[in-house]
Amino acid sequence: MDEPALLRIAQAAARQGRGHTYTNPVVGAVIVRDGQVVATGYHHRFGGPHAEIDALQQLPDPTLAQGATMVVTLEPCSHYGKTPPCAVKLIAVGIRRVVIGQLDPNPVVAGRGQRMLAAAGIDVTVMNDTGELNQAYNFFYQQRRPLVTVKMAQTLDGKMNQAGNQRTFITGPAAYQDSQRLRAQQHAILIGERTLLVDNPQLTVREQSVDHPPVRVALVEDADRLPPDLHLFDGQAPTWLLTRHATRQKWPASVRVLVDQEWTPATVVQRLAQEGLQALLVEGGSVVQSRFLAADLVDRLVVYTAPTIFGPGLPVFSEYQGPSVHWNLSQVEHLGPDWRVELRRK
Amino acid sequence: MDEPALLRIAQAAARQGRGHTYTNPVVGAVIVRDGQVVATGYHHRFGGPHAEIDALQQLPDPTLAQGATMVVTLEPCSHYGKTPPCAVKLIAVGIRRVVIGQLDPNPVVAGRGQRMLAAAGIDVTVMNDTGELNQAYNFFYQQRRPLVTVKMAQTLDGKMNQAGNQRTFITGPAAYQDSQRLRAQQHAILIGERTLLVDNPQLTVREQSVDHPPVRVALVEDADRLPPDLHLFDGQAPTWLLTRHATRQKWPASVRVLVDQEWTPATVVQRLAQEGLQALLVEGGSVVQSRFLAADLVDRLVVYTAPTIFGPGLPVFSEYQGPSVHWNLSQVEHLGPDWRVELRRK
Repeated sequence: MDEPALLRIAQAAARQGRGHTYTNPVVGAVIVRDGQVVATGYHHRFGGPHAEIDALQQLPDPTLAQGATMVVTLEPCSHYGKTPPCAVKLIAVGIRRVVIGQLDPNPVVAGRGQRMLAAAGIDVTVMNDTGELNQAYNFFYQQRRPLVTVKMAQTLDGKMNQAGNQRTFITGPAAYQDSQRLRAQQHAILIGERTLLVDNPQLTVREQSVDHPPVRVALVEDADRLPPDLHLFDGQAPTWLLTRHATRQKWPASVRVLVDQEWTPATVVQRLAQEGLQALLVEGGSVVQSRFLAADLVDRLVVYTAPTIFGPGLPVFSEYQGPSVHWNLSQVEHLGPDWRVELRRK
Repeated sequence: MDEPALLRIAQAAARQGRGHTYTNPVVGAVIVRDGQVVATGYHHRFGGPHAEIDALQQLPDPTLAQGATMVVTLEPCSHYGKTPPCAVKLIAVGIRRVVIGQLDPNPVVAGRGQRMLAAAGIDVTVMNDTGELNQAYNFFYQQRRPLVTVKMAQTLDGKMNQAGNQRTFITGPAAYQDSQRLRAQQHAILIGERTLLVDNPQLTVREQSVDHPPVRVALVEDADRLPPDLHLFDGQAPTWLLTRHATRQKWPASVRVLVDQEWTPATVVQRLAQEGLQALLVEGGSVVQSRFLAADLVDRLVVYTAPTIFGPGLPVFSEYQGPSVHWNLSQVEHLGPDWRVELRRK
């Protein structure tokens, strides 16, 4: 088997960790002798062993590592943490060649793993193939801020709501399932105050289990004036209130109040970056989404469209008054009676 | 080969006639002996031989028809026109079995072909499989009016035009090509007076040749007050002006003026039906499209969407104030940077 094919196997192994590695990347590794895979491993969960170690542990006989090739989706780590770095371990067990999918953009690694291996005489190749495994992780370390996704559901005629401003369910069960998968990929989900008060959403991930539920973030004028019985205070997931007024209230352990003079899309994103959060979903409402768009801080759009013409109703992005924004279409797919479009920043 | 597979071959043959049969259906036929296709034929063009005759002419030896099976996408005709009916010909040449894709809804046939064959002792099976070959033709004879398609191009935020009301090109070359294919399928293309005067469109089929260009139909208040240099008067295709005022002008041969007290979507469609036109594309503008929608006279929607957010601009179906309309999604596909959605009436 050739090395691109072996890398695809390692990438498939990596995907098994999806939803469990939190702020760590998903990583997969295979150990190869004479062109044959003799062990596969992956990073199972945040805090668990790295993929390289997992693969070594799968070997029926540890001496099989001697002289073998390891194909790993991400550069082996080089820093001493809870455990010695993977690069050191690979050298110690006698791996002779390492094929790396992509270098690790995290500054604690960032090429050092590769150099450590090469310095020990190991033959190293970097394929520059991310396999689309860690979009938010890579983005975070390259751009120093979370990858921002805006999600919206609309009708064929670009409406979010029927006239009257009640909450309307536009799309069907398949789109709902997909929107829960989308939430599960996030580290934070943001809403504005109007959405908080009108919809009183839970912002939890349903239909699947997540080890680290995304932080529920709400932009509010004054945390102390919120009704105390909002779903966001139910303790099901952490909740952060971004407000302009110092709080005098005592809050449950799950709630943090972050105070700043002015919260703009730029300061929100900066603050979440400081907290190490790599993926932000701006769920609504339209005013907040339009502000992120106007600030040029939307990296990815996910649009669910229902085959319905509302006629009178509230148009999407009605608050956006900036210049035209052009996107790259990355995917169109059916979701039951509806369809889903994913777009990336040009 | 089994008969459903043979029917698919006949349907593929039929498709070769697309764009050339005008108000006739496309039809394909295969002649089968011992499970093997010995000849295929199709209706090449309006006025040309029917598919059954074309297939018989392809036989290397005419006596091969004796005892053979014919698989034909549409019921053989039974009426004496310029030529004797196909059913009579099949009987005469000794065909023993006829497999029919679908019965012909045209009242001059409508089961008579099948009965004529059966009465001659031929074994006849009807598969009730249209192969989606003659959507408009079938619709026309079942509903007694043309199949009405509304086409629109919009941005992601449901805009047709940027603010300012100039004509804006929203979608790219692949969507343009597709819109020309869509025009080529029509017998008539309708626009309103504002679109006629503001855009001065040609409404001809570009990028491909058509034997029978669709009639260009414009709804106008008074034909005699139109500027004489509009593209619609260029003689490139027939033009019909639907107006409320009798004309005193002399018009070129390509222009007809049809007068009625009040043109509504219902009377437009009725009149086109009387003229035998089976497929109507309502191209614009938004006011006319919204009136057809409100009259419940839109059977098929084709929507081209560009991955662009305009922000300020003219929303689609802005004139439609009726109740919500729900559609069946039949197809979503990429067209270069854009995507196309086809929807059918529920």
